[in-house]
Amino acid sequence: MKASVWAVQMRTLASPRENLEKVRAMLESAAAKDPAPDVIVLPEIFTCPYDNSCFPVFAQEEEGEVCRELSKIAQDHHAYLVGGSVPERGADGRIYNTSYVYDRAGGRIAKHRKVHLFDIDVPGGQYFRESDVLSPGDSVTVFDTEFGKMGVCICFDIRFPEMFLEMRKMGVRMVFVPAAFNMTTGPAHWEVLFRSRAMDQQIYMLGCSPARNAEASYIAYGHSILTDPWGRVVRELDEREGILRAEVDLDYVDAVRQQIPLGSHGVSAPVHFGKSAL
Amino acid sequence: MKASVWAVQMRTLASPRENLEKVRAMLESAAAKDPAPDVIVLPEIFTCPYDNSCFPVFAQEEEGEVCRELSKIAQDHHAYLVGGSVPERGADGRIYNTSYVYDRAGGRIAKHRKVHLFDIDVPGGQYFRESDVLSPGDSVTVFDTEFGKMGVCICFDIRFPEMFLEMRKMGVRMVFVPAAFNMTTGPAHWEVLFRSRAMDQQIYMLGCSPARNAEASYIAYGHSILTDPWGRVVRELDEREGILRAEVDLDYVDAVRQQIPLGSHGVSAPVHFGKSAL
Repeated sequence: MKASVWAVQMRTLASPRENLEKVRAMLESAAAKDPAPDVIVLPEIFTCPYDNSCFPVFAQEEEGEVCRELSKIAQDHHAYLVGGSVPERGADGRIYNTSYVYDRAGGRIAKHRKVHLFDIDVPGGQYFRESDVLSPGDSVTVFDTEFGKMGVCICFDIRFPEMFLEMRKMGVRMVFVPAAFNMTTGPAHWEVLFRSRAMDQQIYMLGCSPARNAEASYIAYGHSILTDPWGRVVRELDEREGILRAEVDLDYVDAVRQQIPLGSHGVSAPVHFGKSAL
Repeated sequence: MKASVWAVQMRTLASPRENLEKVRAMLESAAAKDPAPDVIVLPEIFTCPYDNSCFPVFAQEEEGEVCRELSKIAQDHHAYLVGGSVPERGADGRIYNTSYVYDRAGGRIAKHRKVHLFDIDVPGGQYFRESDVLSPGDSVTVFDTEFGKMGVCICFDIRFPEMFLEMRKMGVRMVFVPAAFNMTTGPAHWEVLFRSRAMDQQIYMLGCSPARNAEASYIAYGHSILTDPWGRVVRELDEREGILRAEVDLDYVDAVRQQIPLGSHGVSAPVHFGKSAL
């Protein structure tokens, strides 16, 4: 069974309204030339600059304009929409980095709050502390489609193989990752993370980054990427604005799982290890 | 704290005696030119051809000649020895793919039985079923050195991130992997597996393969490899016989763990995920 997937690598503008307009414009322009997508993915924090000072300013509750617009975009394109991520103002007053997912009719079918907040400090490289402003989620997020079960996680979440083990146990065949790596970790880790998670769990992985903007306070790596269950890079953008478009064959998941039956070892039925005795 | 590590990428001969002689000769020749190693690693199934028909023929009990010789080699070089792996005849009569580890005085300090047996069937590519002849182990294996805690696993074990999560929780700073990938999975998966396990757990990884022998029934990929906690390839051999020699700085493990503090998120204190609610 084949699905057409689109990842919208957009250069993020200053406000939610401008960014939503840009998403619409990019999608409409692509839809005029190409067959309709089955799944659309947007980048991490696509409604405002990725900057701790912006998160409280632009955080919206679930009933806000951003969610209403995302639902409409899904409806208008009759496609699943993994709505990148946005700063969410929770009912508890806290701010989360949240991805909302919609079905083809615009109904919300999943919501993922980034579990692993992005705190790094590489001397001579990138510094960032999401945890100064954001609160973490605590759940693995999957949703059903006619193509099988899919998962969603956000950026730094990808560094934790335990999340992907859980998702595989829950039956996912593809995982979408709105993500904004940077000029330190992007060149070093981006591709190998997408290849290895795909290979380990024998799934498709689709990462959607913002386009690079050298003037932003946080410079995204770009390079939106699709990897397959054999661990190949199927498609990868460069740093510029554009839409990654690809067709994924979900039956290939079963083929690879038959060739290298990792699932029969413990991925689906986990081994509980003891310490080896002499 | 720095450790000198050697991986002996040898072309495997027909019998345990010939192979042990070859190990001795390769080590002596290298030791004549280079400073003494702190850790020596041998390849997976280095005492006989990697072939299901050979495992029962050459399987030895722990009191056999192979283990006595491995202990002597460790003593003679005053080095830790991760003795690749050998077919072991267990006290239960079963055959295991087993790695014995010795300290500088030749005392046995660890024993790992390959947990995940190598069963694959790639149309037009590699077929093998270890489980026709071998039985699996059920433990994660770590050992102490003056450089910190180290782990050992064997070949197909590397495909299971859950083993490495366990090892990290147990405190490992480096993992040794006697392994014989092949001409299907080697080019596709070898390097990315070593890079990603190193990067995810922020450890050093050292893989030791047999040299390639195009006349063998199972053709090993070679490419013994050292990767660092940042996910870089530090050194990689080609397919030919030789010894990978490198110095690893175990303090770099702490530096990387400070720069990207994955351990504070759940690697050392695992998160238990629920399913995300709408």
